[in-house]
Amino acid sequence: MVTVMRILLTNDDGVYAPGLRAIRKELQKLGEVTVVAPVGEQSAVGHSITLLTPLITQEVLDDEQKPMGWAVEGRPADCVKLALLELLKEPPDLLVSGMNAGSNSGINVLYSGTVAAAIEGAFFQCTSIAVSLQYTKPKPLDFAKAAEYAGKVVAQIVRHPLSRGSLFNVNIPSLEKGPIRGIRVVRQNVAPYKEQFDRRVDPRGRVYFWSGPDFGCPDPHPDTDETALREGYITVTPLHFNLTHSVMLEKMKDWEWTI
Amino acid sequence: MVTVMRILLTNDDGVYAPGLRAIRKELQKLGEVTVVAPVGEQSAVGHSITLLTPLITQEVLDDEQKPMGWAVEGRPADCVKLALLELLKEPPDLLVSGMNAGSNSGINVLYSGTVAAAIEGAFFQCTSIAVSLQYTKPKPLDFAKAAEYAGKVVAQIVRHPLSRGSLFNVNIPSLEKGPIRGIRVVRQNVAPYKEQFDRRVDPRGRVYFWSGPDFGCPDPHPDTDETALREGYITVTPLHFNLTHSVMLEKMKDWEWTI
Repeated sequence: MVTVMRILLTNDDGVYAPGLRAIRKELQKLGEVTVVAPVGEQSAVGHSITLLTPLITQEVLDDEQKPMGWAVEGRPADCVKLALLELLKEPPDLLVSGMNAGSNSGINVLYSGTVAAAIEGAFFQCTSIAVSLQYTKPKPLDFAKAAEYAGKVVAQIVRHPLSRGSLFNVNIPSLEKGPIRGIRVVRQNVAPYKEQFDRRVDPRGRVYFWSGPDFGCPDPHPDTDETALREGYITVTPLHFNLTHSVMLEKMKDWEWTI
Repeated sequence: MVTVMRILLTNDDGVYAPGLRAIRKELQKLGEVTVVAPVGEQSAVGHSITLLTPLITQEVLDDEQKPMGWAVEGRPADCVKLALLELLKEPPDLLVSGMNAGSNSGINVLYSGTVAAAIEGAFFQCTSIAVSLQYTKPKPLDFAKAAEYAGKVVAQIVRHPLSRGSLFNVNIPSLEKGPIRGIRVVRQNVAPYKEQFDRRVDPRGRVYFWSGPDFGCPDPHPDTDETALREGYITVTPLHFNLTHSVMLEKMKDWEWTI
């Protein structure tokens, strides 16, 4: 008997995004892939979920007119919930979220819909991997080539025995910077980012702000996803969703408290 | 010379929410409070941010027609960014996000716009505290009484020397369950939640799903925010935004990797 790995694929760029198509092709070499992804682009939605509007779903076909999965009018995390609770006949062995157009490293991990979908999978005890491709210039990305690398990394992760709900964040460096230098297992960068707003006044005198384009980390910590990516390495970061600051927790237990 | 603590207050229920008004009154006993909050309700938006639409801002007055701060047509995290980078003349000594109508414990910490706003403050190295009030029944909450408790907890946290960007999550138990039993410093619950969708078909034959109301954790881990809150304690959980799974990180460094 041959057992086939069942893979749930989602993303935050939408079901028709080229990054999803590219990684799907690679994941099909590893198992049976079902897509459940948002209808449209959902970047920077973080771990938002939809409570107050209905989630409309629709079956979608791939370029060869074969069933590919479902498009959902919702957030990436909604897609994962719906897939696991309603749409898939059996629980998947692996969830992959991506491949995102743009890296998700440093504090972007917390803004990212791509990573949120993977975290949602881990909530449900499913091994989950977020995959993103860095871009450094506004030109078409070589998703096909990047997806080859990503597929290899995914294969190397899942060949290890993993506890339920294991969670990983993978970034592929921009391929325009030259050959990839290797794979590095690194922690998430937490050094502060620099950003700015563009202040404007509308024709009726109201003040408004655009989020500026120059969001970046001027001084990332060494040995992190941020630095390794800049140096041309594929980064792999194991994540968890317990935000408890354990050291501070122990300290605070000794504080005096009164109500 | 008297130094006054400058407090930035935000939330995810909107600038006109009663929970914000109530906690503002208590925080004014501790310092000078400026509100920068979303115009309308933003629950379960997680750590989403607004990149593709402009953030319209408007000055708002309180019930006594005195300047209170700004309303922003954006997400809680947008409000914090705008406050710190554009709207406030000086950086605040403390950020408070809340008081949210509904607890933010367990994995809800990751869905919560209230907590996301506090995390955003911590990104900017500001001491940040998310405050939420549990509700167990759909009736008006006693925000005034709960805010008194919350104010006291905030005061007790900030009297300690804290490193920059310290981050806390505070939950007040439902006041309908009887007197509060005390304050407990506890970790975030990470036990799985149970939830379901309500599947329907629209008049045109399209399938859609409503997120069900019975989202809950049937079997929370002991000594966590989830259990302590159920037992009637105020919970305080120190958080951080480094999602790296450190134990797994060390293990994975020994794995063989090839590109």
